[in-house]
Amino acid sequence: MPESTPTRDRIVDAAVKLFAERGFRGTSITAIEAEAGLTPGAGGIYHHFKSKQDLLRAGVERQLSRLDALRDMRWLITDLGDLRAELTIGARYILSELDSEAELLRILASEARTGQELLISAVEKIVSNSYTELATWMRSRSDVTLTDAQANAIAALAMGSLLSSRVTATVLGGPAFPVSDEHLIATWVHGTLQLLQNPPTLP
Amino acid sequence: MPESTPTRDRIVDAAVKLFAERGFRGTSITAIEAEAGLTPGAGGIYHHFKSKQDLLRAGVERQLSRLDALRDMRWLITDLGDLRAELTIGARYILSELDSEAELLRILASEARTGQELLISAVEKIVSNSYTELATWMRSRSDVTLTDAQANAIAALAMGSLLSSRVTATVLGGPAFPVSDEHLIATWVHGTLQLLQNPPTLP
Repeated sequence: MPESTPTRDRIVDAAVKLFAERGFRGTSITAIEAEAGLTPGAGGIYHHFKSKQDLLRAGVERQLSRLDALRDMRWLITDLGDLRAELTIGARYILSELDSEAELLRILASEARTGQELLISAVEKIVSNSYTELATWMRSRSDVTLTDAQANAIAALAMGSLLSSRVTATVLGGPAFPVSDEHLIATWVHGTLQLLQNPPTLP
Repeated sequence: MPESTPTRDRIVDAAVKLFAERGFRGTSITAIEAEAGLTPGAGGIYHHFKSKQDLLRAGVERQLSRLDALRDMRWLITDLGDLRAELTIGARYILSELDSEAELLRILASEARTGQELLISAVEKIVSNSYTELATWMRSRSDVTLTDAQANAIAALAMGSLLSSRVTATVLGGPAFPVSDEHLIATWVHGTLQLLQNPPTLP
């Protein structure tokens, strides 16, 4: 990835914002230049990026590397010696991660049908990795021994309910989730804890 | 709504399919005519619809009226005298409802940012009503008395985890949900039942 410069960063900021608002195809290079404070139509973007596609790639890669940085802080969550406290922090962490990915999620949703390899692998990285990591963490922290199937199912349910709390507003453009974050997290922690202590019998 | 005819229905089918695949703006009237088996470019669609926007409206309205029909069957679920069985049937019902809305969800996700009133009210109807109805049902069926806040939070969590199981594949175009429907439903029923029997203390 080319070195980050203030102008380059500003261009990526502008592109991600406009792609999320208007879609990839609905956004012109000229509009990105204007949003980034460059002279519209003067082609200043081409000193930094080959094409609009190249800009989309840079935006997705930047979001993914931010995500990696956030993930490196995960050790903060473990070994508090109190599973309830760890789940509470875990839920807050996942929600803030989703919030920081709102623009990316909006771009992914509106461009998904174009089947671009870049976007498909970004969804793969964000969604699948999150489920897998949560399942691994649950298996290591639960007092009751969980089978792979149980840990996967509990993690999928738990991650899914947090994802949904953001998706209707962010991706579907609908009304906000009908429950406050405070009630959502308290109920999520309570429900997840009960599933870890008394897991389902799976066929 | 104008009377339904075989040709009219075929045009709406074709339009919904193409809007979901290519987006509203990416779909031409000519392409819809070809998909519906009419002579492309001959304008046969205009005997039935004023515009592409009118077609989108017809597609959304048809999906919503199918949803209403499905909802009328909900009494099938209640009063089995066994909350676990009712939750199992409820989960299957919600998942099949989401599957039958897959094309509509895809259209909503890709067009959400255009802020069309029609689409916003469709999301409102699908998402908000579902949460509210599930909360009402839970309050009426739980053995433990639930406050409004508890029923709302449990319903939001429960509905959200089922919604997520479809959203990553349908809307984000990502990998399928990492858990089979059988494991998902068993874990969902087990977890929801525990929340209804031992609800969280909410601040």
